[in-house]
Amino acid sequence: MTVTYSSKVANATFFGFHRLLLKWRGSIYKLLYREFIVFAVLYTAISFVYRLLLTGAQKRYFEKLSIYCDRYAEQIPVTFVLGFYVTLVVNRWWNQFVNLPWPDRLMFLISSSVYGSDQQGRLLRRTLMRYVNLTSLLIFRSVSTAVYKRFPTMDHVVEAGFMTADERKLFDNLKSPHLKYWVPFIWFGNLAAKARDEGRIRDSVDLQALMTEMNQYRSWCSLLFGYDWVGIPLVYTQVVTLAVYTFFFACLIGRQFLDPTKGYAGHDLDLYIPIFTLLQFFFYAGWLKVAEQLINPFGEDDDDFETNWCIDRNLQVSLLAVDEMHMSLPKMKKDIYWD
Amino acid sequence: MTVTYSSKVANATFFGFHRLLLKWRGSIYKLLYREFIVFAVLYTAISFVYRLLLTGAQKRYFEKLSIYCDRYAEQIPVTFVLGFYVTLVVNRWWNQFVNLPWPDRLMFLISSSVYGSDQQGRLLRRTLMRYVNLTSLLIFRSVSTAVYKRFPTMDHVVEAGFMTADERKLFDNLKSPHLKYWVPFIWFGNLAAKARDEGRIRDSVDLQALMTEMNQYRSWCSLLFGYDWVGIPLVYTQVVTLAVYTFFFACLIGRQFLDPTKGYAGHDLDLYIPIFTLLQFFFYAGWLKVAEQLINPFGEDDDDFETNWCIDRNLQVSLLAVDEMHMSLPKMKKDIYWD
Amino acid sequence: MTVTYSSKVANATFFGFHRLLLKWRGSIYKLLYREFIVFAVLYTAISFVYRLLLTGAQKRYFEKLSIYCDRYAEQIPVTFVLGFYVTLVVNRWWNQFVNLPWPDRLMFLISSSVYGSDQQGRLLRRTLMRYVNLTSLLIFRSVSTAVYKRFPTMDHVVEAGFMTADERKLFDNLKSPHLKYWVPFIWFGNLAAKARDEGRIRDSVDLQALMTEMNQYRSWCSLLFGYDWVGIPLVYTQVVTLAVYTFFFACLIGRQFLDPTKGYAGHDLDLYIPIFTLLQFFFYAGWLKVAEQLINPFGEDDDDFETNWCIDRNLQVSLLAVDEMHMSLPKMKKDIYWD
Amino acid sequence: MTVTYSSKVANATFFGFHRLLLKWRGSIYKLLYREFIVFAVLYTAISFVYRLLLTGAQKRYFEKLSIYCDRYAEQIPVTFVLGFYVTLVVNRWWNQFVNLPWPDRLMFLISSSVYGSDQQGRLLRRTLMRYVNLTSLLIFRSVSTAVYKRFPTMDHVVEAGFMTADERKLFDNLKSPHLKYWVPFIWFGNLAAKARDEGRIRDSVDLQALMTEMNQYRSWCSLLFGYDWVGIPLVYTQVVTLAVYTFFFACLIGRQFLDPTKGYAGHDLDLYIPIFTLLQFFFYAGWLKVAEQLINPFGEDDDDFETNWCIDRNLQVSLLAVDEMHMSLPKMKKDIYWD
Amino acid sequence: MTVTYSSKVANATFFGFHRLLLKWRGSIYKLLYREFIVFAVLYTAISFVYRLLLTGAQKRYFEKLSIYCDRYAEQIPVTFVLGFYVTLVVNRWWNQFVNLPWPDRLMFLISSSVYGSDQQGRLLRRTLMRYVNLTSLLIFRSVSTAVYKRFPTMDHVVEAGFMTADERKLFDNLKSPHLKYWVPFIWFGNLAAKARDEGRIRDSVDLQALMTEMNQYRSWCSLLFGYDWVGIPLVYTQVVTLAVYTFFFACLIGRQFLDPTKGYAGHDLDLYIPIFTLLQFFFYAGWLKVAEQLINPFGEDDDDFETNWCIDRNLQVSLLAVDEMHMSLPKMKKDIYWD
Repeated sequence: MTVTYSSKVANATFFGFHRLLLKWRGSIYKLLYREFIVFAVLYTAISFVYRLLLTGAQKRYFEKLSIYCDRYAEQIPVTFVLGFYVTLVVNRWWNQFVNLPWPDRLMFLISSSVYGSDQQGRLLRRTLMRYVNLTSLLIFRSVSTAVYKRFPTMDHVVEAGFMTADERKLFDNLKSPHLKYWVPFIWFGNLAAKARDEGRIRDSVDLQALMTEMNQYRSWCSLLFGYDWVGIPLVYTQVVTLAVYTFFFACLIGRQFLDPTKGYAGHDLDLYIPIFTLLQFFFYAGWLKVAEQLINPFGEDDDDFETNWCIDRNLQVSLLAVDEMHMSLPKMKKDIYWD
Repeated sequence: MTVTYSSKVANATFFGFHRLLLKWRGSIYKLLYREFIVFAVLYTAISFVYRLLLTGAQKRYFEKLSIYCDRYAEQIPVTFVLGFYVTLVVNRWWNQFVNLPWPDRLMFLISSSVYGSDQQGRLLRRTLMRYVNLTSLLIFRSVSTAVYKRFPTMDHVVEAGFMTADERKLFDNLKSPHLKYWVPFIWFGNLAAKARDEGRIRDSVDLQALMTEMNQYRSWCSLLFGYDWVGIPLVYTQVVTLAVYTFFFACLIGRQFLDPTKGYAGHDLDLYIPIFTLLQFFFYAGWLKVAEQLINPFGEDDDDFETNWCIDRNLQVSLLAVDEMHMSLPKMKKDIYWD
Repeated sequence: MTVTYSSKVANATFFGFHRLLLKWRGSIYKLLYREFIVFAVLYTAISFVYRLLLTGAQKRYFEKLSIYCDRYAEQIPVTFVLGFYVTLVVNRWWNQFVNLPWPDRLMFLISSSVYGSDQQGRLLRRTLMRYVNLTSLLIFRSVSTAVYKRFPTMDHVVEAGFMTADERKLFDNLKSPHLKYWVPFIWFGNLAAKARDEGRIRDSVDLQALMTEMNQYRSWCSLLFGYDWVGIPLVYTQVVTLAVYTFFFACLIGRQFLDPTKGYAGHDLDLYIPIFTLLQFFFYAGWLKVAEQLINPFGEDDDDFETNWCIDRNLQVSLLAVDEMHMSLPKMKKDIYWD
Repeated sequence: MTVTYSSKVANATFFGFHRLLLKWRGSIYKLLYREFIVFAVLYTAISFVYRLLLTGAQKRYFEKLSIYCDRYAEQIPVTFVLGFYVTLVVNRWWNQFVNLPWPDRLMFLISSSVYGSDQQGRLLRRTLMRYVNLTSLLIFRSVSTAVYKRFPTMDHVVEAGFMTADERKLFDNLKSPHLKYWVPFIWFGNLAAKARDEGRIRDSVDLQALMTEMNQYRSWCSLLFGYDWVGIPLVYTQVVTLAVYTFFFACLIGRQFLDPTKGYAGHDLDLYIPIFTLLQFFFYAGWLKVAEQLINPFGEDDDDFETNWCIDRNLQVSLLAVDEMHMSLPKMKKDIYWD
Repeated sequence: MTVTYSSKVANATFFGFHRLLLKWRGSIYKLLYREFIVFAVLYTAISFVYRLLLTGAQKRYFEKLSIYCDRYAEQIPVTFVLGFYVTLVVNRWWNQFVNLPWPDRLMFLISSSVYGSDQQGRLLRRTLMRYVNLTSLLIFRSVSTAVYKRFPTMDHVVEAGFMTADERKLFDNLKSPHLKYWVPFIWFGNLAAKARDEGRIRDSVDLQALMTEMNQYRSWCSLLFGYDWVGIPLVYTQVVTLAVYTFFFACLIGRQFLDPTKGYAGHDLDLYIPIFTLLQFFFYAGWLKVAEQLINPFGEDDDDFETNWCIDRNLQVSLLAVDEMHMSLPKMKKDIYWD
């Protein structure tokens, strides 16, 4: 589930962000503690080898190697590469969020423009609404691992009430080597056109308003699909990952505390714990984790979108809106500012 | 309340921005003086310990530590991390501002397209307008702490005249485990459809124009909700905060004035007051405060959006526009450029 | 008035931009010469004090101070802070430009969709057009200092022919504690609806086309208002200004030419005139001036938008288009490519 | 074919991205191994020359040259230039993807708004749909080398069933020195208008909905064409390429391991294999490869868009949707949440 | 004419971009060779003076000056300033391209929605289309130097068949101190309204579709005009140009090879040809040339938009589409996938 902390930072206060540093869920610590342990253990191991196992000449060689690594570690442009890459990932992530398909606009239109309080009318409105929810479910199954786990086959979709058995049969009979998530929208369009012919949708203006919203909904669906289909080019991700991993590999050797008595520049203090290197590990690896978490927001990370919740909410709310609430209006009364 | 200073910088003049440096409300000084005092006190304390309490050998050790800290402080990529992060926060903040829901477009349409100067007509227009205001109020209650304080329960919403008792009852009776802020829009749509049937809205073109605007309004509302619900990933905020805090922690030790007689490079002057480090504190901590202030613009900071004022303005203005001003036109007269 | 130089750079030629360096109007020299003189005078004064007034020991102390300042001056992240800040300001400035309200789209519609060549028809079209111009004038009065100077009171608005005396009275009688710039649009909407009832606007399709354009116009107006109301947070501007000013303050001392005979690193040449520091002043202060000039583009800078000219142009052109040009068509003739 | 790896990174896990480092298809290794071999061979060759062939004095000269090259290699702003350039290329690439023309919106409208289950009706819907597919095919032939290879002449277009022989003749007879990919849209518009006259499209609202979608489709087509026609200015690409190539040329000499006994600063270790320089080669050359791969996404790279697949999918799906599925609706049944 | 090279980079191949380095048209070499020669000559001249003309003491002074210049050259933030500036210029340039006015959308609508195959109908369609082309021509005359050269007076516009003599007279008689490029659109709107009255445009829906497209076209036109009218503020361009020019001025002196026997740090090699400085000249000056070329894309550079070609294409194609092709449809035949 998304980790919401905005109410915690509503006001800029005394050291306002420090409270955020103490959270666990969705936090940098939870995401990084395993990598951090690995890094720390490796660093310690190398340190032990250097201090206890190596002979004098080997120590001298290691010291030269360490200085060499340190010098080149600083040349690796981690900050920049990460800055540009994370900006790209964050933008994509946010675009995916704002393009999540919500059926609200359609349900307002269907509730007000598709007439008939009789059973046929109710059936019509519910069916239209169900087609809309069905389409987004089909898309979510391709895009989100969480949804796919819940609906591994079309049988699960039918069982969950998104599709009737008849519809399933018709759906399966359509011969196409390509994905068929657009099929319910054809049904939607044809059903709406039929409803206009029968007078349940009053005229072309109302019908086209419905069709426009449906197309908008479809655009959201296919954009989500597109983000999943065509990701950030693998090469880019590899370049960034290589840069960060190489940097930390160089740090493992280059940031060792060398024998202060040898007088290497910048090595006149032996603190045992490389506090700033560990902090750098948190910055850079944390920054990379931001990318890792957001590059596919439809997984099961703490910060991923709750697609299964969305699916349930959309079905429940939209059926309520077009059926029970259709033409069930509160009595108009004068408000308290009248006159 | 938002701090407006644009009229002060209308013209680029001699040292034009220096006047801005002397403001208090919404200023960097007001936001930072507490942190600044803490930082200065800690710096001074460490300075005293170094100068007065430490023995010679301890002083030598501290000096090495200080040089070590200083060297790594410069390696922390504060500038970059802050640059990318603040850009992200500022963009989100501005998008939230431009997506604040204003009912003006709807009130123009309702005032001109919903007919009837009799009581029923007035009631109809006022009710439609009230539903619009009610929806945004329900959203603002989730999003803004200031609004939530003012309307902690639905009773307060009813009392303030945004909802009638009947509507409250119907609203509460709807069974849904999900948020119900969309309910007034279903009422709006159905009421408008009824008005068309009764001829008070002339035809489908006028009706759909209303529905389109309503959907636009709803999109603003749900975008605000989305910004509140799905914030910048916690990890990113933590990375940035850690980087800045670490930098200042390193500065506390690394930027101490060391004994000039010891001949450390760059330490041949003892100024007592680390003027540039304090200024750096202002830049970096100030930059982080920009983010802290804007990350949730619905709090009660000096620079936050005045949501409570918006709510009042929108209700007052929109009822005025659709009721009193409906078809109350000034007499058309020739303007002074006629012929 | 805006400084246009695009025709000067139509072609990329031999040292193409050098010609731009010699312009005065809107140039960096005109904007900066006062600050530059102040900076140069201060630098010279400090130089004199160092060279002529200080004693030997004082000179040594000053030299250490200068080196200290120089070292920290380089740590101030002026380039980055300015880069991110100016990008933000330039984007806002351009968005304000593309959202200036132009009545052209509305005047095309009114000229073609509002019928009647009689006096009543002319009056109707002129009045609708006048309401549009009136609204933007009311907005410009809040936003632009230049327009406010020209129309300090509503009397000036009436005198200039944007409002009739009757309208003024009705406008003043509306009781609202809030800004009333939206009022003419309510009149516009109601007047247009009345025109449809009278058959002067043919049907709802034409009417809603008008209403849509009017709402577009209003969005431009309120976006301009929004940019003025909610500026870049003061803290951000202060951070940037402080960074730049501090940098130059550090340069005043840190970039002095020290006695070459003392053998300080990088100080073996005494040029008297710190040519590169002066050039740096031009880059950085010039970059900040870009921001200063664009942060409020409705002032009276060389590069600000000519709002008063816009107001006049819009009224003159739009009245011409809807009145004199209504249904005054050139005779259709075969063009020269016929057959 | 596009390399999709999003399902591999659905969850942020322990060293989550490392699995991506081991892929071959679309990977940095596959793209770079040839350049890498060339670079490594050249480096080794120079190393051999230096170690084995040069005399003492020549070695001294080479060592000075190497240090000189190394110093300047660091001054080349590869990181920045690449950062800005790749951001530009990635944005263009993504915009091209989201503007790929999909006929789905049009096929929903045609399936529901163009009436008649008789042969004439079927023919009408299929022909309209075919014109849409034909236009995008004509565009893709100009834009994509893969599509051009498949349809080198108009004969291939006719053979593949996108065009009839009659249409081909009419198309060829049109006299215009300019590209004619817009012609099928004129046919589409005129055919749709004729269908309205015959009552197969009900009214102007339905017709204009179709026309609007068609124009949207055309905008996608012409935007693709525009991206192909007006690329990133050649100069920019050359600047970036020159910077990267120069950097590696400087590295070939400047990153040689010099004789440690000569005591050059930073040269007290001879590792034979310049591990960090090779890694830098991967970062920078890999980053440039990102640009190279994305600058024209219609080629035959691993990561390019599968235009030929799109063309087949669009034709198959859209004919299915407007013909076989027209008014073939599943029977409406109560869903499982009824009551 | 635009230099298109996208087909050359369709696939990412072995050293894929190197082929681009060998092009001449639109290349960095063609744009920069003159500046490069000037720079090289100046560098050589200074080098000769230093080596041959200066006395020993003068040489020592020059050497100090050179080191001083070199140190400050590195402080000039050329990379950053250029990076931000070029990004801004490239974005503006691309926005201008995508907002070039194309009449295709309008010609589809006119061809299908304006009825009548008689002479009056043909005249009507051609005249409407001509007004559209006329407006963009009037805009292009203000914006593009190439178009202005071709149409220096309104007589040339009439002669070229964009305007009839009658229209010219009416146009000239309109009294307005402002630009009149909007006039043909008033004619367009009024003529279309008249056509609806006469039944040649069927109803308001068709008419408003035309008006909407026309307004879209006008927005493109006025956006182009806006980009020309309000350029990047002169100060910004001057700041960038000054930074680049100063950098190269500092390089002329600071990058001289000093006498290696004097033992200045980093000066123990005399290569005579400053290969890396010359390459830097290519990067930075080339980057600035990108800006110079794109800042006004309506000139006559190799990479500028071919506005004159656009004008011809648009007139030819649009007249063809609305006249000869009106209701001239190929016979509908079954496609090869039928059944």
